[in-house]
Amino acid sequence: MKDFSFYNPTKIIFGRNSLKSISNELKERGYKKIFLTFGKGSLKNSFLYKAVKFELSEFESLEFWGIEPNPRVETIRKALEEAKNFNPDIVLAIGGGSVIDGSKLLVGSYYSDIDPWELVLDFSKVTKVLPLACILTVAATGTEMDSFAVITNWAKNEKKAFGDVRVNPIFSILNPEFTFSLSAEQTAYGIVDIYSHVCEQYFNTTKFAPIQDRFSESILNTLIEYGPQLLKDLKNYDLRSIIMWSSTMALNGIIGAGVNQDWATHGIEHEISAFYDIPHGAGLAIITPRWMKEVKKQKHDKLVQYGKRVWKLEGDNETIVSQSIELTFKFFKDLGVKMNLKEWEIDKSYFPVMIKRLVKEGVGEFPLSKEQIENILINSIN
Amino acid sequence: MKDFSFYNPTKIIFGRNSLKSISNELKERGYKKIFLTFGKGSLKNSFLYKAVKFELSEFESLEFWGIEPNPRVETIRKALEEAKNFNPDIVLAIGGGSVIDGSKLLVGSYYSDIDPWELVLDFSKVTKVLPLACILTVAATGTEMDSFAVITNWAKNEKKAFGDVRVNPIFSILNPEFTFSLSAEQTAYGIVDIYSHVCEQYFNTTKFAPIQDRFSESILNTLIEYGPQLLKDLKNYDLRSIIMWSSTMALNGIIGAGVNQDWATHGIEHEISAFYDIPHGAGLAIITPRWMKEVKKQKHDKLVQYGKRVWKLEGDNETIVSQSIELTFKFFKDLGVKMNLKEWEIDKSYFPVMIKRLVKEGVGEFPLSKEQIENILINSIN
Repeated sequence: MKDFSFYNPTKIIFGRNSLKSISNELKERGYKKIFLTFGKGSLKNSFLYKAVKFELSEFESLEFWGIEPNPRVETIRKALEEAKNFNPDIVLAIGGGSVIDGSKLLVGSYYSDIDPWELVLDFSKVTKVLPLACILTVAATGTEMDSFAVITNWAKNEKKAFGDVRVNPIFSILNPEFTFSLSAEQTAYGIVDIYSHVCEQYFNTTKFAPIQDRFSESILNTLIEYGPQLLKDLKNYDLRSIIMWSSTMALNGIIGAGVNQDWATHGIEHEISAFYDIPHGAGLAIITPRWMKEVKKQKHDKLVQYGKRVWKLEGDNETIVSQSIELTFKFFKDLGVKMNLKEWEIDKSYFPVMIKRLVKEGVGEFPLSKEQIENILINSIN
Repeated sequence: MKDFSFYNPTKIIFGRNSLKSISNELKERGYKKIFLTFGKGSLKNSFLYKAVKFELSEFESLEFWGIEPNPRVETIRKALEEAKNFNPDIVLAIGGGSVIDGSKLLVGSYYSDIDPWELVLDFSKVTKVLPLACILTVAATGTEMDSFAVITNWAKNEKKAFGDVRVNPIFSILNPEFTFSLSAEQTAYGIVDIYSHVCEQYFNTTKFAPIQDRFSESILNTLIEYGPQLLKDLKNYDLRSIIMWSSTMALNGIIGAGVNQDWATHGIEHEISAFYDIPHGAGLAIITPRWMKEVKKQKHDKLVQYGKRVWKLEGDNETIVSQSIELTFKFFKDLGVKMNLKEWEIDKSYFPVMIKRLVKEGVGEFPLSKEQIENILINSIN
């Protein structure tokens, strides 16, 4: 195990009645003016929207609508202007990972005169942060209990992440019912995203971290067991709650404490969705098994452990490795996800610039070579 | 899964170099006067003591020595008097669970005029808490990242727990090297304590909590694999780090979120050590397998899951249950722990008063009957 520090001060309020506590959570912190952030409008006729307005009826609030999937810095600049005019005590993000991630940049930029994109590139320039809370409507990114956000700059075809514990939500309302209306497709992308977050932390070569390994395997096994059940029964509270809690546990720092992490798959996916506006989970499903194949020498022992413990494979190690990669591919495919870039009408046009950037940035526990990145991308086409 | 809230704001600083950050952690919070609490004196000639003094050389500090195992309210009253005269910004507890638990009562009592024992019995009377931090020297209780403390009132033969997130350490320094000097016996009690904490949360009948179940099994499997190795190699950093992190993860709220909990074993052990000054882990090792036997009807399905997943047992369910209880007993016994009360020279003299109290209090997920408690105690003698 490596030296590490772990600090996650987000309060999670989970369950059917979780929204009812929001008024107390705000009052006991003395917050009176709430800036509400939303996605592109799908919530406007929902029960959730009405319930939120009801619970916040004693507070002064202003709504900002329009944070899109793969949230754009351009949109956050607009939100920032409205928020500064309103002068809120707190931002309450209501939505999925994109709305919350966008709102993390909003609270980080609020007290600053520096352009938000510059802060994405170097968040240490932020001196003070406005408090953030959230009501989660998609189980996927883990942003409800972490310090990270991913922002797209469409003008530059760039998609970048930043992380700072000051943007952790102070509290997050997690009611699995608020994810009932997600389609099977959206739900599947969430499951892939969670699975990928675990893989990014699990496929390390750090020795003597059995708690982290087994916790990771716990989440993967849970996704494999309950994910497909959920896709057949989208309004099942128990299944929604299992996937929602998996999402939070996958990226709140617990499984990644004290181990090397990889994040090459995310790095490559961010490049793809910086050029093509495809869902994050869609890109991850395609890249993950190709990435596994490409690093199977470097990550050999962990892939064997993965095959044995997660997929219950037996036999010689080489067979276990190749079967476990095939089973990962099949798991994603059976969730109904497109398993190659061609189906998204993506060809190799932008590969050279993506590869150049990724090599420069350095992605992976042992940074991937130019050739490895190229192989992963080329193998992802068909 | 049940509705729950999870909030754990303790910052963990883990590893060989963790102590070096203490000065910064204190300074960035503006703390200048540190009240140091210690155990009965074994640390006085240690490297740790010298290192702490060195790291704190820029701060004003006062030392309080003498918090005993099963920390007593009488001792905390004395510490309180000295602390009030010194007027510190923070209490820094340096030791194992007892020193930290005692210090939790100290910081809770600091601003109050109410006697500390009254606060143990009703912590909601506390209006303000002095900050607490700790340097951990024993992996066992999990108190380094939780809100709980157990205090003994020797005058009344009572041992009671309280819990409040305001007494969570603001930061905890976890350096596995600081546990190198523990004997095999002390180390074994720690392992039993961790194992028991997991069991208290794992043996619930809550449905649809697979993440919590699998995380619990992860910790148990880790203890079973690495605990015996550590007893043969007490100064092995990797093994010490695994057990230390197991300890923290076992009781920081993660595995108990959203599930019923039991805590009957701890309830019974607290009664025993309120009358007899035996190590907490010693009592737990004896009670746990007897408790499992007594609740095997109520907890049948979970015991089967435990046998299959933790002990890799196969066959019919009844055999799995009885074998898993035997294997639990054997695991503790092989750690070198005494496995009955007779070896501690404890007889049934005080059983009637213990049983009366436990029935009144109500212990267990489904409170144990008088007969069940009696069976557990009687079966523990030999």
